[in-house]
Amino acid sequence: MTHFGDRLAAAVRRAGNPVVVGLDPRYDDLPAALNSSPAAARIDERAAACGRFCREVIDVVAARVPAVKPQAAFFEQLGPPGMQALADVMRYARDRGLLVIADAKRNDIGSTAEAYADAWLGHDSPWGADALTVSPYLGGDSLDPFVDAATRRGAGLFVLVKTSNPGGGQFQDLNAADRPLYRHVAAHVERLAAGSIGAEDYGSVGAVTGATYPAQLAELRAAMPHAWLLVPGYGSQGATARDVAGAFDARGLGAVVNNARGIIFAYRRPEYAGLGTTRWQDAVAAATDDMIAALRAETPAGRLVPRP
Amino acid sequence: MTHFGDRLAAAVRRAGNPVVVGLDPRYDDLPAALNSSPAAARIDERAAACGRFCREVIDVVAARVPAVKPQAAFFEQLGPPGMQALADVMRYARDRGLLVIADAKRNDIGSTAEAYADAWLGHDSPWGADALTVSPYLGGDSLDPFVDAATRRGAGLFVLVKTSNPGGGQFQDLNAADRPLYRHVAAHVERLAAGSIGAEDYGSVGAVTGATYPAQLAELRAAMPHAWLLVPGYGSQGATARDVAGAFDARGLGAVVNNARGIIFAYRRPEYAGLGTTRWQDAVAAATDDMIAALRAETPAGRLVPRP
Repeated sequence: MTHFGDRLAAAVRRAGNPVVVGLDPRYDDLPAALNSSPAAARIDERAAACGRFCREVIDVVAARVPAVKPQAAFFEQLGPPGMQALADVMRYARDRGLLVIADAKRNDIGSTAEAYADAWLGHDSPWGADALTVSPYLGGDSLDPFVDAATRRGAGLFVLVKTSNPGGGQFQDLNAADRPLYRHVAAHVERLAAGSIGAEDYGSVGAVTGATYPAQLAELRAAMPHAWLLVPGYGSQGATARDVAGAFDARGLGAVVNNARGIIFAYRRPEYAGLGTTRWQDAVAAATDDMIAALRAETPAGRLVPRP
Repeated sequence: MTHFGDRLAAAVRRAGNPVVVGLDPRYDDLPAALNSSPAAARIDERAAACGRFCREVIDVVAARVPAVKPQAAFFEQLGPPGMQALADVMRYARDRGLLVIADAKRNDIGSTAEAYADAWLGHDSPWGADALTVSPYLGGDSLDPFVDAATRRGAGLFVLVKTSNPGGGQFQDLNAADRPLYRHVAAHVERLAAGSIGAEDYGSVGAVTGATYPAQLAELRAAMPHAWLLVPGYGSQGATARDVAGAFDARGLGAVVNNARGIIFAYRRPEYAGLGTTRWQDAVAAATDDMIAALRAETPAGRLVPRP
């Protein structure tokens, strides 16, 4: 299996854009056709509806973007039937040529981390993710089993470095030895990335760096030259295309930008209200295309496609 | 539903000891009767075997200890059938009067953290945990939805503060403003604990503090006087009863000590080899009783039971 960093570069080039569609199927937000009785539905019915919703989103975006990012929390919220839906959705996305980044923010100490890595990483694993988000608090030895499994299986990792939430800085921004904690984590990620490098000059190990902190995004691009950046916070969390421009390299590679609610629930946004709730898939398509256009216009991702 | 800190105190008093049995069902380590063909078994067969193994462990320990701690990683490793087994095992343990601490080390930003909290916390949630382990890297606002749900549902949290692995200090021990990161996290946990306090003077929010760092354990007991400590690292990771003595208050409350492999796979330990592999449940019983005796002899937990 090909190196994850190279596969991601190929997928971004093929799509001509770096958009990741976040699959956050909050049941209460589903279009009316899929969520007719929110209070009464049993958990297996809710899981089935969320699975169907995600598959229909995938049908719309598969030809448009390089990757999807299912958020484990919304599937776990639906218990075991939700986890079955997650597995089904991940397979459905892979079968349609999308890379699947499982956003599960897992980690544990060494031998348990091995089990998580075995669970998630690679197409032959039980969940079959192309990449997984992981948390760094437990230290480098907790990340090693993930790195080993990712390297063996052509899969990737995105380590939380600087998250997009307002309180993310409470610990991440604490200064230790003249630089914030997130820069210590970034230095570790860069070592792992440089140690797992592929033909496109990026490693199998990348970083999660929030779009809501544009200055740090450019700083972290420079601090981790070999790490793919997974950038959340675009759209509903307030970040714009211009805010994420600093995450890219000069080729327009090196970053993928996630948008969940702003795309999958676009039918609720005023700018797409004209489509009506029954045409929610058209709203997904329009919001995806609008985000692609914005990133092409305002960031180096515009270099991925020939100028008209 | 009663306050989690009070329920945990009651369960520890009722059992007369603070032992938590970790349910880490590594399929390859199961007794031969449950794992006859490791290479050939399908994932649903492995999940069924792990579920049966955990239920049999629960049958042995339910009358002996206050709580069990299923490790999500080993169930996730078995895909959706593994997650069904996890839900079944958690229910089985609850039905036998054990508190269930789901060791999943979850977290995410606010609105997604809400989904995780809703998934796991409380007996009416899809997974039905009495408590959940969570990671602090994303900051206090990522913990708030967990605290809110725990408070509403009589459930608890254990926030990673100082983990038991050799490399745990890489980030946790970084000095920021004259104290290590883990002390900043501990200060935050103490605020949450003091803000959710019950009749036994402990909050709904506790901390994970590894037994493998005995000096820090006592330091953290003092720094978080209102936080229950969940102490991993006993036994297979090298910590002894004496190492965990500093985690308790003068009543013998305030800490629960986890042991997974050392109990559930005790049939593989030299000291229980005489029982043979077919009597693996007897080895579970003996290892549990031996750990209880050691904690009673070497720690303030001895005060939980009348002196003979």
